[in-house]
Amino acid sequence: MIEGIDHLGIAVASIDEARRFYEQLGLHVEAIEEVPQEKVRVAIIPCGASRIELLEPTAEDSPIARFLANKGPGLHHVCLASSDVRAEGHALTEHGFRVLRDEPTPGADGCLVNFVHPKSAGGVLVEISEKLSGGDDAQ
Amino acid sequence: MIEGIDHLGIAVASIDEARRFYEQLGLHVEAIEEVPQEKVRVAIIPCGASRIELLEPTAEDSPIARFLANKGPGLHHVCLASSDVRAEGHALTEHGFRVLRDEPTPGADGCLVNFVHPKSAGGVLVEISEKLSGGDDAQ
Repeated sequence: MIEGIDHLGIAVASIDEARRFYEQLGLHVEAIEEVPQEKVRVAIIPCGASRIELLEPTAEDSPIARFLANKGPGLHHVCLASSDVRAEGHALTEHGFRVLRDEPTPGADGCLVNFVHPKSAGGVLVEISEKLSGGDDAQ
Repeated sequence: MIEGIDHLGIAVASIDEARRFYEQLGLHVEAIEEVPQEKVRVAIIPCGASRIELLEPTAEDSPIARFLANKGPGLHHVCLASSDVRAEGHALTEHGFRVLRDEPTPGADGCLVNFVHPKSAGGVLVEISEKLSGGDDAQ
């Protein structure tokens, strides 16, 4: 079941520059984390029940660097929170939607994540994420 | 004060086609409304504390039709819920951010709205919306 918008990913050339707008609105950067496998730094900005994540590339071959080169800075993806990302992915595949991974994979913060191809989701890159309760007990 | 993500606006060529993905995820279209001044039809999909809004143009000179022609379907804007959109707009302007309207204007559902130019918000079209309690007492 989809429970809400987990976060909105925004591609930026510079977190230092982009965060100023959100800070002017009274929002704050809770943490900045590096995700080496995606070659990005992520500034996490809580926003009500959701988060805004500013994504800054750390290498020229980062997917976010390619996005910036092709489209410029802006909205990159939406992540929906799910209670069962595995079932969600299987049901989507069964009904002809293109899911990037056969099985969800570990993401940040002890989440399991999968992605829906933009061609199957009206041009939107959709991440689906399930928060695992424990961490050690994650299968 | 920013209270959360009010909604995420997604440009689509066809609501009938695009809604299938969200319905497969168990989300539902609560209403479809026409907004003549924006020349769009809007499918409203509750998603946790937020909404997803699918925006379909009703005329070739609709802003959404131009967006589709230039960039194709996909993420169009994010709307942040505010407790005081007027103060938000004034403070942004004072600090050099480009806000589209000097004063907020009535939006759908008895809201007051304003927009931040993408050039001032890292390439993102940001709507700021304040829900007025009454409607008749809105000034």
